[in-house]
Amino acid sequence: MASAPDTTSIPGYTIFREGDYDSVAATAMLPQGTPHPLDQLSIKEIPQVAKLVRDYCNPRTVKFNCITLREPRKAEYAAFKAGKIPAPDRRGFAIIIIRETEQVAEVVVNLKTSKVEEYKEIQNAMPTLTLEDLDVMERIAREDARVIRACNEIGITDMSKIFLDAWAIGIDERWGFDRRLQQGLVYYRNSEFDNQYAHPLDFSVVADTEKEEVLSVDVRLVNGERTAPPLQEHNFLPDFVGDKYNHDRLKPIDITQPEGVSFKVRGNELSWANFKMHIGFNYREGIVISDVRSHDMYEDRERTLFNRISVVEMVVPYGCPEKPHHKKHAFDVGEYGSGLMTNSLKLGCDCKGAIHYMDGVMSTGNGEAAVIKNAICIHEEDNGLLYKHTDYRDGTVISARDRKLIVSQIITAANYEYGFYHTFTLDGTYKLEMKLTGMLNTYCMHPTETAAPYGTQVAADITAHNHQHIFSLRVDPEIDGVNNSVVQSDAVSSDHAVGSPENPYGNAFLSKKTPLRTSLEGAADYCYETQRSWDIINPNRMNEIAKKPVGYKILNNNCPPLLAKPGSTVYNRAAFARKPLWVTPYKDYELFPAGDYVCQSSGEENHPHNSTILDWAKRNENIENTDIVCYIQFGLTHFPRTEDFPIMPAEPVSVMLRASNFSVKNPGLWVPPSAICVDTMSKNAFASSCCAANAPASSSRL
Amino acid sequence: MASAPDTTSIPGYTIFREGDYDSVAATAMLPQGTPHPLDQLSIKEIPQVAKLVRDYCNPRTVKFNCITLREPRKAEYAAFKAGKIPAPDRRGFAIIIIRETEQVAEVVVNLKTSKVEEYKEIQNAMPTLTLEDLDVMERIAREDARVIRACNEIGITDMSKIFLDAWAIGIDERWGFDRRLQQGLVYYRNSEFDNQYAHPLDFSVVADTEKEEVLSVDVRLVNGERTAPPLQEHNFLPDFVGDKYNHDRLKPIDITQPEGVSFKVRGNELSWANFKMHIGFNYREGIVISDVRSHDMYEDRERTLFNRISVVEMVVPYGCPEKPHHKKHAFDVGEYGSGLMTNSLKLGCDCKGAIHYMDGVMSTGNGEAAVIKNAICIHEEDNGLLYKHTDYRDGTVISARDRKLIVSQIITAANYEYGFYHTFTLDGTYKLEMKLTGMLNTYCMHPTETAAPYGTQVAADITAHNHQHIFSLRVDPEIDGVNNSVVQSDAVSSDHAVGSPENPYGNAFLSKKTPLRTSLEGAADYCYETQRSWDIINPNRMNEIAKKPVGYKILNNNCPPLLAKPGSTVYNRAAFARKPLWVTPYKDYELFPAGDYVCQSSGEENHPHNSTILDWAKRNENIENTDIVCYIQFGLTHFPRTEDFPIMPAEPVSVMLRASNFSVKNPGLWVPPSAICVDTMSKNAFASSCCAANAPASSSRL
Repeated sequence: MASAPDTTSIPGYTIFREGDYDSVAATAMLPQGTPHPLDQLSIKEIPQVAKLVRDYCNPRTVKFNCITLREPRKAEYAAFKAGKIPAPDRRGFAIIIIRETEQVAEVVVNLKTSKVEEYKEIQNAMPTLTLEDLDVMERIAREDARVIRACNEIGITDMSKIFLDAWAIGIDERWGFDRRLQQGLVYYRNSEFDNQYAHPLDFSVVADTEKEEVLSVDVRLVNGERTAPPLQEHNFLPDFVGDKYNHDRLKPIDITQPEGVSFKVRGNELSWANFKMHIGFNYREGIVISDVRSHDMYEDRERTLFNRISVVEMVVPYGCPEKPHHKKHAFDVGEYGSGLMTNSLKLGCDCKGAIHYMDGVMSTGNGEAAVIKNAICIHEEDNGLLYKHTDYRDGTVISARDRKLIVSQIITAANYEYGFYHTFTLDGTYKLEMKLTGMLNTYCMHPTETAAPYGTQVAADITAHNHQHIFSLRVDPEIDGVNNSVVQSDAVSSDHAVGSPENPYGNAFLSKKTPLRTSLEGAADYCYETQRSWDIINPNRMNEIAKKPVGYKILNNNCPPLLAKPGSTVYNRAAFARKPLWVTPYKDYELFPAGDYVCQSSGEENHPHNSTILDWAKRNENIENTDIVCYIQFGLTHFPRTEDFPIMPAEPVSVMLRASNFSVKNPGLWVPPSAICVDTMSKNAFASSCCAANAPASSSRL
Repeated sequence: MASAPDTTSIPGYTIFREGDYDSVAATAMLPQGTPHPLDQLSIKEIPQVAKLVRDYCNPRTVKFNCITLREPRKAEYAAFKAGKIPAPDRRGFAIIIIRETEQVAEVVVNLKTSKVEEYKEIQNAMPTLTLEDLDVMERIAREDARVIRACNEIGITDMSKIFLDAWAIGIDERWGFDRRLQQGLVYYRNSEFDNQYAHPLDFSVVADTEKEEVLSVDVRLVNGERTAPPLQEHNFLPDFVGDKYNHDRLKPIDITQPEGVSFKVRGNELSWANFKMHIGFNYREGIVISDVRSHDMYEDRERTLFNRISVVEMVVPYGCPEKPHHKKHAFDVGEYGSGLMTNSLKLGCDCKGAIHYMDGVMSTGNGEAAVIKNAICIHEEDNGLLYKHTDYRDGTVISARDRKLIVSQIITAANYEYGFYHTFTLDGTYKLEMKLTGMLNTYCMHPTETAAPYGTQVAADITAHNHQHIFSLRVDPEIDGVNNSVVQSDAVSSDHAVGSPENPYGNAFLSKKTPLRTSLEGAADYCYETQRSWDIINPNRMNEIAKKPVGYKILNNNCPPLLAKPGSTVYNRAAFARKPLWVTPYKDYELFPAGDYVCQSSGEENHPHNSTILDWAKRNENIENTDIVCYIQFGLTHFPRTEDFPIMPAEPVSVMLRASNFSVKNPGLWVPPSAICVDTMSKNAFASSCCAANAPASSSRL
């Protein structure tokens, strides 16, 4: 029997070492039977990849930045789906850092043949920071003499009360790619569970976390003076605020599913209502939803919708120009990894009702498998009315209730938390709702300073800076087939003058359609005045009723323009955030619009190992009637409020893909109504009294 | 003992006549004790008003268009609230039509003194169409020789299969205010429960429904030909589609509140969480939420938020220029009345969980009280995360769940249904969510026609025209006091160039604040590029932390520009829909932005009895630091899809008012967390295991 799994080294991770697989916990995390080609690497496969890579690199020693599934190429997967080939070989993809040289390399390993198939050295690019990498900053900074002195100068001597949030460097001209950099934002805690964001300190630390070396302690002086640490406490944990809880005011709301859930899970394949899909997960994107199909009740066939959906990037640029805040623009997906930062979820806390959880399988720097238990939550929720109509003449009523299938994860990005809720509803809609909560990034204020205009004073001597959150949702559409196009729709008044024969009363309006033909045209702007939307269509399949091609409409009016100016660091690094939509032709393994290597990136064009959406768009290839990919940007601009302190009420923002002449009729008519009411004074069909037929025994059922 | 209440004359209404009050049903609808000054008129008060008006008008005879509460003047109500005066006298307000002359008049009756206090004749203006009025069209049209001939010509002889949706006239130059007009849109039914919207006919009817006289039957000829009725059936009721129901696919979701609801209702006063408010209802606006206050946990005092919230107008302009479709632009609030059209709700059908219903009290043309049982639904829903934060170092987690209080009603406006969901959440937010469902307005197509560009063919030979839905939410704010201002907020990049000392890295951005000083400035446009929002502030009360005035922010990016051109009928009649925001100084009884009398209105300026928001704005009075009212327009532009036929999946659209430096900290910190998790490997405070403290016994509880 192997030793018990080590649970101490990374909070929230359960780490498995070779030989651990016999333990009960491990067995539960091993896949049953043949894996689906899109399943995550298992806890057995990860160390297999590690061993093959280590052997290949020997005698050089390897630090693993990631080990993850190498998804099959699209053509290969399509051939498998079509039954033309057996399952593609399982492959692993690793990014490694050679310990001796700090050389970064990408490795592709075939697990069936036990061969390294590709090995590519990467120049001038830095991979994602892992939780292990981030852990270095606080440890080395606390022991650094310059950090200790910077603390002592403002009266802090107990270094165990100093905490550093480790961030990717953002930008720092003092060092290049010869060093792997982090910046540490420094906070103080009065006690073990005190809220550190109430005590931001006036200096930051730059470190080479690979060499474990503090490079610089950047103290901010105002008029030549240090800023005193704000020491007033602002807490949110029960020990501090529990006496304010009102336990009687909110009565419980119980949600139960006595007959179980309505979805079925086989391995990582999920079916619910008319939908079928595969749920994947990786260290970088977190949830990946693949192979989304829908059963058409009218044509009685399965129709493809989306080949792959995931959140591939986000950027949080802060708007304070003063050093060191210019460095704050976190790319949480590319710099830290949405998978790596995922919370282990708990029933009743993060989700309610009957939940199905899936685990996330990560890797450690040593090449071990690390499991985030309950990384993915799958559950259903009531969603109010699906449809209703009353005939006002006789009171005949029909109404049906909608519900949601939600596939979700929550990540902690240092101070912030993001909830990702991939949501499907019975009308055929896919919606990504993000919920933003957690802690504001804060900074101390010198008595001569005001928070305005670049921040809000959220407590005495504390400012929270203006910032934006811009997410990039990557949708690889497969609307009733592989070859799709995007058509821009603008609601416009008729060109004809009021009083003209074509528009006598001036009410005429229409939807102006503009096909996006190349990837430069696919870099589209939003237009509020025309309520712009975009239809992803299949030009080869007509809706014979509407005489329009079948499609899904992108509805996105939550796309804040990037406020960093053209030419700015953020503008260059986060080119994806310049547009609410980019459409490019599909290429295997082209996934990340800010580049595969975002840490320390400058956004330079034509980088040999780190191309971005800007490069892809500038290829200006055809995007009509071909295999395309859409990058949909959305988010919000946040001017902090005092209500956001000391912990932020969740703020939602979403984007939606809605069937648009995809189905010949309402796709929800198979849903039994919750009510069929007939005014029995005048009618006697269907039901002898209101809400009788199909109505639930208990009034609270769906 | 009186005779049983008559329930036959208006579907969904229970009508009470004098003497009925002793019946059990009636007693339940009588208020207990002294009414609150904002309570609806009771079923006893309505006939009292009617009698006083009748006596006053004698010997002329009276048709009642409405009898409703005359709300106290604001100053009077404020004096009452402050305890300076006893309850204001109960007053009724009636709009009447003198049967002999069709003269319209407004009457104010004091129920305490039994006196008619005001009697004002109204010229060149038409009041709302009641359900009784709408009932006339179908009855008289079926018997009209021209209508019968128009049907016969297209092969329809059984006039009991002809149905007319009665609409306000919209515009018709052929008649003026000497006649009270309606247009009838004509449909056919194959059988009693057949969907008539699958069989739209090619003619419409104009009638004087006061004189009960058909004025014109407008047959549309295409190339001199009639259009054959589309006879194919497209149904949605179970008798027709029930064999498609899949009863096994969706398992029940049960929502229960074993300890009851968390809100308290005393009469029509409602308290929940930190909120207190009064729920009113009238024939025109439907739900009226008054006197919204919030208890501030930090200042331990009650603070006023909104004096009055209601949906005061909406317009649904259709975009097809061809006659007779130019007449289709329904003002559902002003022309038909949101109260009058309200559904009687049913548990399990329209709402789930533990519901408190309130009734709506209307009046009939004869001056009787007519009750819509369960017109208003009050219930709570779980709302996911209120806040969450994990310390990534040690896994310390806190999370709390949010919930909603929803005050809702559903109306049927002929083909369409609208759900109004006034929603409050624990972070202090008010949100109005509308849900649009029901039936598309349809029209038949001649074989030579195409639906494009002004509509979508949703079934063979049937088009559904492009249209917009623009709602007007009236918010009379009282942000911490009566005198408020509105400040426009635009997110803008810094003016300083990239590389300048003030903006070295180009990331600087800020919120530019522009006070709206007069009601012409208060007619504001939305700006997507700056993510514009508007803060309703109290300039007399500073948030001492943020050093900004306390406020609530209007978040509205769902404000489609009106697509009817300047100079068009709709543009003139629906001036309110030209702007997403209007701010005017408060005036007693100035409520309806398209005018008090919308039917047959032309939108003319300076109408002596029918002023509109345009007139109010053009007074150009001060709106700074005074008692103001905000009219917030929002909605959507709808290009119909085949998915919207034969019944539309509900489409939501919403607008939000969010606390903005109103509270000095997160106002939800009194909510006990659903989870406090501490990694017990490293910590031992608060809880000995995850989710122990305050965690529910049953995992599914809130």
